[in-house]
Amino acid sequence: MTTVGILGGGQLARMLALSGAPLGLRFLVMDTAGDACAGQCAPMVVGDYRDQAALAEFASRIDVATFDFENVPAESARWLTERVPVFPSPRALATAQDRLAEKTLFRELGIPVPQFAAIDSRAGLDAAIANIGAPAVLKTRRLGYDGKGQFRIRTPGDADAAWAALGPQAPAVGLILEAFVPFQRELSVVAVRGRDGGFRSWPLTENWHVDGVLSASLAPAAVTPALAAAAIAHARKLAEALDYVGVFALELFCKDGQLLANELAPRVHNSGHWTIEGSETSQFQNHLRAVLGLPLGDTRMVGTACMLNWIGAMPDPAAVLCEPGGHWHDYGKSPRAGRKVGHATLRADAAVELAQSLQRVGQALERQAQVASVLERLRAYDA
Amino acid sequence: MTTVGILGGGQLARMLALSGAPLGLRFLVMDTAGDACAGQCAPMVVGDYRDQAALAEFASRIDVATFDFENVPAESARWLTERVPVFPSPRALATAQDRLAEKTLFRELGIPVPQFAAIDSRAGLDAAIANIGAPAVLKTRRLGYDGKGQFRIRTPGDADAAWAALGPQAPAVGLILEAFVPFQRELSVVAVRGRDGGFRSWPLTENWHVDGVLSASLAPAAVTPALAAAAIAHARKLAEALDYVGVFALELFCKDGQLLANELAPRVHNSGHWTIEGSETSQFQNHLRAVLGLPLGDTRMVGTACMLNWIGAMPDPAAVLCEPGGHWHDYGKSPRAGRKVGHATLRADAAVELAQSLQRVGQALERQAQVASVLERLRAYDA
Repeated sequence: MTTVGILGGGQLARMLALSGAPLGLRFLVMDTAGDACAGQCAPMVVGDYRDQAALAEFASRIDVATFDFENVPAESARWLTERVPVFPSPRALATAQDRLAEKTLFRELGIPVPQFAAIDSRAGLDAAIANIGAPAVLKTRRLGYDGKGQFRIRTPGDADAAWAALGPQAPAVGLILEAFVPFQRELSVVAVRGRDGGFRSWPLTENWHVDGVLSASLAPAAVTPALAAAAIAHARKLAEALDYVGVFALELFCKDGQLLANELAPRVHNSGHWTIEGSETSQFQNHLRAVLGLPLGDTRMVGTACMLNWIGAMPDPAAVLCEPGGHWHDYGKSPRAGRKVGHATLRADAAVELAQSLQRVGQALERQAQVASVLERLRAYDA
Repeated sequence: MTTVGILGGGQLARMLALSGAPLGLRFLVMDTAGDACAGQCAPMVVGDYRDQAALAEFASRIDVATFDFENVPAESARWLTERVPVFPSPRALATAQDRLAEKTLFRELGIPVPQFAAIDSRAGLDAAIANIGAPAVLKTRRLGYDGKGQFRIRTPGDADAAWAALGPQAPAVGLILEAFVPFQRELSVVAVRGRDGGFRSWPLTENWHVDGVLSASLAPAAVTPALAAAAIAHARKLAEALDYVGVFALELFCKDGQLLANELAPRVHNSGHWTIEGSETSQFQNHLRAVLGLPLGDTRMVGTACMLNWIGAMPDPAAVLCEPGGHWHDYGKSPRAGRKVGHATLRADAAVELAQSLQRVGQALERQAQVASVLERLRAYDA
């Protein structure tokens, strides 16, 4: 009997536990909140990630540890590593937690990346703006998540306001200035690498964000085979450089047909939720297979799929459940503004059916705005 | 927040709980055994089904009740019905629990059924054998499961031995003599009926039993559209007659191209496990949708699928996990002779791929005998 420990007890841990049960696995979730939604599907240890007593209890009850939450303190992950196998490694996690380390690695590996510079003073910010130009975005190096800890600099005159907003955080978490990329599309590669170095990627996904939070994903993304191959090659190079084990996502911008790496997410990823119904093996089960050294499952798609995120509160499920390929995911969370509380996946054998389904759901739930960009892209499938 | 109570805590309850979590449902399982495997995935009430205090606690914590186990005493189900909605209804359960009531209903509905007769005495047995002929099978009317409580009568001379074996049970559970059907194939219809009377069937499944226990299932069964339509029409008629709500299976024999009804299983069914990966909506999720009055999900297949049961102990998972469409289901049970401990489903887009996959798995696990009949049938797909 193998018990997998998961640091963080949100929806990712919940879906990991649900997809791992058929493998005969047991789970133990650690979270700071006693009502974390994964606790509905697995036993929990409640405690701060820096609390060594709680961590020790967690470690004593598990065979291997992984993450639902990328901002677990790297030192807690390292402490755990001395006691149980931890995947992905704290080194991979630390790189992904630090925008500067991450972007430096992208550049070292020859993965195109928007211009960037480390900022540690007000004067340094001016110098970087002069070099990179405006618009640009000033960000914290660490603990950024879903658009928090960012300040957009439209003209060099915004430097004062940007520094006032984020400068105080510079000593603690570091800052980075990144060129603003007026991209046309956002893509992600969701991929998995096994303990033995085996690598598999799901088809590329196109993503739409609203206020910095993922709103909709469409797979497969309508891109040329060459672009898809290049994106997947970048992801593979990155995974190999980090000796990464598990599922991860590489978020990319696409501008004038060129890819630019944006971010590495060292975990199962919101843009891969469609794999539960839309792929032979879900990202959740493949993450567990990788972490446990089991053979990786096939990542081929079955048809085409669109995921819609539910933010704040769950809509009425009926419209989705009525759809031939409609699948509902309620994370069991209480409603709260800005909170990811669930998602739906619509699956269809053909793009035209998916578009019809999406249109009906958008209309029934009065979420035409959420589905509009996806519908537009689906029309381009046929063109 | 809706809590679904499940009477019986075996693998069916476990798979119901896993498939219901994405609907935001909570579960409570009641079982006589504290280590019932569904308890790994949901909270439990441990107690005898006739223990009213345990039943009362169970009822007080749930919004609706259903079954993993068809032999819950009908009076316990009826007691529950006075407190919470129970689906399927105790009346449907009682009919399915009694071979005589079940076969009488088949006959009343015009569903072809092997000859049968109620037996309540030694003389009655002789008379029935004279009428029905031999070979025939003497069975208990109630509490039969996976071939237990049955005695095969090859010639009229076996009547003494049959009566010695089962006669003592006649006063308590009743007996029935059924003509033995030298069938060529065993088929099942797995179907679902909603609270609103909506009805959907998955494609027909062909099944192979070993020692009275299901060993392998293949879907879709290679039958003519007319035969499939007739089988599904029988299932529908039955569900409507019983005002059935939820998933059920109608087991059928096929002899010389004719269908004969064998048994109604009033629950999610082992021959429908392939629907987890092989269909748009699994039997487990559709059972919950039906019980809760939610819209039923699409029952169309995605490709073709074969399920292999693991009896007694789990084999090494690697051979299945290596297959492109290989899916593993370990119920988290300790090994025991004759016990269903897990299953695997192999899915493929085409029959020829499925056959190759099955052949590799049969060989790797040294289970050539288990897969041989399925392989033979898959060859007939192409013919």
